[in-house]
Amino acid sequence: MLPNPQLNQHGELQHLLTIEGLPKEVLTHILDTAASFVSVSDREVKKVPLLRGKSVFNLFFENSTRTRTTFEIAAKRLSADVINLNIAASSTSKGESLLDTIDNLTAMQADMFVVRHAQSGAPFLIAKHLRDTGREHVHVVNAGDGRHAHPTQGLLDMYTIRHYKHDFTKLKVAIVGDVLHSRVARSDIHALVTLGVPEVRVIGPHTLLASNLEQMGVRVFTDINQGLKDVDVIIMLRLQNERMNGALLPSAQEYFKSYGLTPERLALAKPDAIVMHPGPMNRGVEIDSAVADGSQAVILPQVTYGIAVRMAVMGILGGS
Amino acid sequence: MLPNPQLNQHGELQHLLTIEGLPKEVLTHILDTAASFVSVSDREVKKVPLLRGKSVFNLFFENSTRTRTTFEIAAKRLSADVINLNIAASSTSKGESLLDTIDNLTAMQADMFVVRHAQSGAPFLIAKHLRDTGREHVHVVNAGDGRHAHPTQGLLDMYTIRHYKHDFTKLKVAIVGDVLHSRVARSDIHALVTLGVPEVRVIGPHTLLASNLEQMGVRVFTDINQGLKDVDVIIMLRLQNERMNGALLPSAQEYFKSYGLTPERLALAKPDAIVMHPGPMNRGVEIDSAVADGSQAVILPQVTYGIAVRMAVMGILGGS
Amino acid sequence: MLPNPQLNQHGELQHLLTIEGLPKEVLTHILDTAASFVSVSDREVKKVPLLRGKSVFNLFFENSTRTRTTFEIAAKRLSADVINLNIAASSTSKGESLLDTIDNLTAMQADMFVVRHAQSGAPFLIAKHLRDTGREHVHVVNAGDGRHAHPTQGLLDMYTIRHYKHDFTKLKVAIVGDVLHSRVARSDIHALVTLGVPEVRVIGPHTLLASNLEQMGVRVFTDINQGLKDVDVIIMLRLQNERMNGALLPSAQEYFKSYGLTPERLALAKPDAIVMHPGPMNRGVEIDSAVADGSQAVILPQVTYGIAVRMAVMGILGGS
Repeated sequence: MLPNPQLNQHGELQHLLTIEGLPKEVLTHILDTAASFVSVSDREVKKVPLLRGKSVFNLFFENSTRTRTTFEIAAKRLSADVINLNIAASSTSKGESLLDTIDNLTAMQADMFVVRHAQSGAPFLIAKHLRDTGREHVHVVNAGDGRHAHPTQGLLDMYTIRHYKHDFTKLKVAIVGDVLHSRVARSDIHALVTLGVPEVRVIGPHTLLASNLEQMGVRVFTDINQGLKDVDVIIMLRLQNERMNGALLPSAQEYFKSYGLTPERLALAKPDAIVMHPGPMNRGVEIDSAVADGSQAVILPQVTYGIAVRMAVMGILGGS
Repeated sequence: MLPNPQLNQHGELQHLLTIEGLPKEVLTHILDTAASFVSVSDREVKKVPLLRGKSVFNLFFENSTRTRTTFEIAAKRLSADVINLNIAASSTSKGESLLDTIDNLTAMQADMFVVRHAQSGAPFLIAKHLRDTGREHVHVVNAGDGRHAHPTQGLLDMYTIRHYKHDFTKLKVAIVGDVLHSRVARSDIHALVTLGVPEVRVIGPHTLLASNLEQMGVRVFTDINQGLKDVDVIIMLRLQNERMNGALLPSAQEYFKSYGLTPERLALAKPDAIVMHPGPMNRGVEIDSAVADGSQAVILPQVTYGIAVRMAVMGILGGS
Repeated sequence: MLPNPQLNQHGELQHLLTIEGLPKEVLTHILDTAASFVSVSDREVKKVPLLRGKSVFNLFFENSTRTRTTFEIAAKRLSADVINLNIAASSTSKGESLLDTIDNLTAMQADMFVVRHAQSGAPFLIAKHLRDTGREHVHVVNAGDGRHAHPTQGLLDMYTIRHYKHDFTKLKVAIVGDVLHSRVARSDIHALVTLGVPEVRVIGPHTLLASNLEQMGVRVFTDINQGLKDVDVIIMLRLQNERMNGALLPSAQEYFKSYGLTPERLALAKPDAIVMHPGPMNRGVEIDSAVADGSQAVILPQVTYGIAVRMAVMGILGGS
């Protein structure tokens, strides 16, 4: 196996590209660091000077105001200078290549790139290019690439689970929905397995399940009632609009009937099970409003922990 | 009458949603606070640390670069972290509801929302939701909602009038133009009445006057020459482009002929009358350039005081 | 000759509008100041407090993410508050004139405008208006106006040449490409002549050469092989997409065949000649990738020096 391109020769985090292959110690270190930032966000003055004078570029080749906002807030609370670049609308329209853009921004003394890209592997390509050109001091954070990975979402999900359930090694966790197209699902599965969760389940229709799921160490269910039985954690996935009336699904109504999380279905899980969702929710499609706003939902705490986790990742990468 | 949702149980400003119903003491406190910030903006270093570490979100569901810029500058001069969200182009396109967006941003530890929305009442809805969910510590500033209110514009107009005329209780003030569609007019009228202006006049064609104006305590004129007679203050309203060739008005040229503020008409007012306009002006439509650039115009000082007033509002809400 | 509108009565830089007519001492002072900022950008904390509390407005009437980003970074490293305004999409659509926009932003206590505009002369118009209205304390930096000038690009090119070649008075410099439409070429030629370069050459097809080039003190070549002979510095220009299939040029392929910088052509220059390009590059059109990525290219250092030069210009203008 090749050495993990995310770690330097001392085993320290150099980039955050994917959770796959990250050692448990690295994941735990990020979660522990995030815990210290949860309290920062609660203070009157929500700033620490860890990245003061550092230049963080939000490179969004694919539009996502919500994710970009979380990274922007996290970077500003670390006192970084943040530059938002919506690249779809700019230099690529002048025919400049991805790597020429990176070279240019690096020449402006960028310290960190937060990259969102519709193509799987784009953040890897950038990290490799930085190494090949001797600029390992510039860091890359993957903010979602194609169907591949969304590691900070995975980490904030782990933070949330650890906060409510404490011990990963005793849990049954179910991931429900469009697993096939979900980078969130992929990142969660890798993290859950690495952190020692003994039973990870995925639940969804045949058409939305990936073929390699069992190799990833998960149990597959097409019947949500069976799949939710006795689980401690339910992670709902967002159903992308473009799937709803396509070939893979009959309709949003049908989907809700078969896989929507209702109070009745939630009752099949353990009584203290928590319900998570990466947002934005499609109420009445993958989740009933009674559940989304109910006492077992921890969807808003996920958002709060997401800021802390992103501060932790950026602080670990850029603050040393 | 219900208690004012903008004030907390100690009568302190909790949100700024509308001028309607705000006690004179609250208005005067904002204007007095703004006076201290006028001098800040004149200093070499135009910053005070009042909102350091606070996160202010500019939520613009309706595009308005000019207004957004004034709030952004005001927040930055208070040392806040400012996040601009052009929501029209973002999460609502993913089908997320207004209140889900608010819940999410609140979970990111937002301290203040500056809200611009095409629908009247949206900022009230947000404030109510924050109270209903126990998050009264998050503040809402209405930056213009539909035809309803634009309270910071009303306050900066009052600041300007007080600066030039000192005593509200001796003034005749005329508001000229499309009163029917104007949130500025509505906010100004409430403020003028509360601050004790004995004679508020509105001037415009029948088709652009609201039916309830006389209940609001104003005198209505359709003849501008009569309406301007002996006034101390003239507040011109912007004629929206979409009205100009519509059913309500024959044409921009006709409008100017009947209601445009020319030097001749201005001469009907008191010799030391001031001319105000919320901007951006349509020169040659509602106002002649000779007046807009003349010695009685205080249109640019309005802009300057607008920054100070917004600093005051945000400082009072978030700085305590 | 009229006094230079860029200088105040003490001969100090008041605005940066064009390199034409700027004395050698002023150019040299900017380059010397930039040298001190190159080291700032290398430090852990890349900030100096020179513009703390100052409000810098990036007024981009023409979209250019790359140039806007360089000014934004430069201003933030000087600790300024930066407001980005994409004016194409905002108030001009409400029919507000350029000078009304400037008046408004000045009333918000703007300290500096960085202006990009498709029309030649727009920054001059703004500077003149500021002087005519008694607001000389507000500074204007031209970030590219039409075909006229791009002075900070010219300055960063001079910084780069001085860094690698030390003495301007012994150099042969060739500018290659679409000189006719290039504000970069015009700014470079003025700077090179002022700084004492004895031989400035321009190389391009007849259709892309301006008629007044020889009056500007340059030698004109249509044969690139002759033009590159023994030069110390090669400045490649970007071929605008809109020229490529138009009346002025047969095709991008043909252009590359006649004027593309290949390793073979580069070998005609001095062995230690440097290759420059303002970016973004059209690889395979005006420049071969082997040259762009080769050992003689200083294209990325240009970007780095560009930040320092912009910090210098803004620091000199606003920091006094």
